[in-house]
Amino acid sequence: MKTIYPKDLTVPEFQTFLQGSIAPRPIAFVSTVDAEGNVNLSPFSFFNMFSTNPPILIFSPSRRVRDNTTKHTLENVKEVPEVVIHVVHYGLVEQMSLASTEYPKGVNEFKKAGLTAVASELVKPPRVKEAKIAFECKVNEVKPLGEQGGGGNLVICEVLAAHVDEEILDSDGVIGPSKLDLVARLGGNWYSRSHGESLFEIPKPLRTMGIGVDEIPAEIRNSPVLTGNNLGRLGNVEVLPTDEELEAYGKSSLIEEMRVRFRNDPDSWIDHLHRYAKEILEGGDVETAWKILLQKLN
Amino acid sequence: MKTIYPKDLTVPEFQTFLQGSIAPRPIAFVSTVDAEGNVNLSPFSFFNMFSTNPPILIFSPSRRVRDNTTKHTLENVKEVPEVVIHVVHYGLVEQMSLASTEYPKGVNEFKKAGLTAVASELVKPPRVKEAKIAFECKVNEVKPLGEQGGGGNLVICEVLAAHVDEEILDSDGVIGPSKLDLVARLGGNWYSRSHGESLFEIPKPLRTMGIGVDEIPAEIRNSPVLTGNNLGRLGNVEVLPTDEELEAYGKSSLIEEMRVRFRNDPDSWIDHLHRYAKEILEGGDVETAWKILLQKLN
Repeated sequence: MKTIYPKDLTVPEFQTFLQGSIAPRPIAFVSTVDAEGNVNLSPFSFFNMFSTNPPILIFSPSRRVRDNTTKHTLENVKEVPEVVIHVVHYGLVEQMSLASTEYPKGVNEFKKAGLTAVASELVKPPRVKEAKIAFECKVNEVKPLGEQGGGGNLVICEVLAAHVDEEILDSDGVIGPSKLDLVARLGGNWYSRSHGESLFEIPKPLRTMGIGVDEIPAEIRNSPVLTGNNLGRLGNVEVLPTDEELEAYGKSSLIEEMRVRFRNDPDSWIDHLHRYAKEILEGGDVETAWKILLQKLN
Repeated sequence: MKTIYPKDLTVPEFQTFLQGSIAPRPIAFVSTVDAEGNVNLSPFSFFNMFSTNPPILIFSPSRRVRDNTTKHTLENVKEVPEVVIHVVHYGLVEQMSLASTEYPKGVNEFKKAGLTAVASELVKPPRVKEAKIAFECKVNEVKPLGEQGGGGNLVICEVLAAHVDEEILDSDGVIGPSKLDLVARLGGNWYSRSHGESLFEIPKPLRTMGIGVDEIPAEIRNSPVLTGNNLGRLGNVEVLPTDEELEAYGKSSLIEEMRVRFRNDPDSWIDHLHRYAKEILEGGDVETAWKILLQKLN
């Protein structure tokens, strides 16, 4: 491991490192207005949700590193503390990127990006018609994090209303991640797309209390065949199979055949048993994987 | 579009909606200690970077919706205002998920998750040896966002030192997103992985001032063939090809053949021209796409 101290690097160098590390970052595509009603639309990837009650979203328009100036969005929310925050799906990503161009003050990025402004219900800034989700928010507070170039400014927003395209909802009314197809920012010019094979599920352990990896028998825990991910899944069960369950499973033809084949070769027995269990585990059947792993040769 | 008001939903219902919308969320895998030195390790997806100078990372351990209790991590940072924040790559995801189990106070999640604790250099909480990036931080402030269940707590952390596995760095010393293979949280049990085909690049418009979609000729802007992403990329050029360039390109055999083929069918000429330009554009060659789009039939 290499150790880096921020004080030894320039601000742009450490920024590059941080933006490559803290990722993928969700994107807030933010509409604001100034006191005269001039509209601004700009994306920010220093953004996330931070509370559900009250519902709080926070994004940060940073002070520019090159000249310590501030962004129109920050100036606008100080004049009119209201925003519309849109999330960005793949079909919107090039127009969102174009809207990040630093056009002069007063230029309406809705027009430059070719997007349609629709009046909001509760706030002054308009929303983007082409976005699949929009949050109308009031700004509760703007909290500066630094006074130099690169210094962030937390814009703490409370959600008043949300607009959602019903086409992204599954039959149970919940957002389908593949239907929404969100994009996020990484370092450099990189983005990632959350769809297809990049999506996967892990059952939440919140309602169970797994035995933990430390309670997995040493021979299994130290197996050269099993990965950390395999052990994590195995440690998330609450109980191991009973002796009766193991005995019953041990009579399956595949196990019986392995036992005959490797009766004089315990190392190969263990290796094959672990490989077979790994395959079953990665198919999602933790219970059967445990029944395989706990079989004895004799 | 369907409009939703947070006040009309229960907190868990609106939380489900928010967590499906604000995504993919990067994951902070956070190590803390209490005043007695007991170690805690827990993941949080209400997390991001918010400033580079000073370098500030923020995560939020929320008050539990079901009983308004607080998490050990929050209690610990109030006792010892220091944390180590790790990012989570794919190979660590199941052990990270297991560490989110609500084990009783005093249980060391490093052990339960089968991870190795290594002493930090500048702070008391240990770091996870298996993580590819770790940030040693001091906690500047804990800022509550609400007092009810679901209320967030901003833990505002300043980076003192970073540890990085050199294997994830490209030859230029910058983090390679595919080498890091980060995971992020979406709604429900969903995660996404930033690698392979989910990664893509868009050139940053920060040093250019694109003409904007509003300056694209109407016939092209309103083309049924071109998508919003196509228009966004076309609007990001600073100048259009000159008449000389267009004339030279118009003598290419493919354009000459199309002109002959469609000389009595201007609609098909436009349709084919736009389809051809779209293909070239999506291959990344914006300049040539513009030369195609601006050809005239006669």
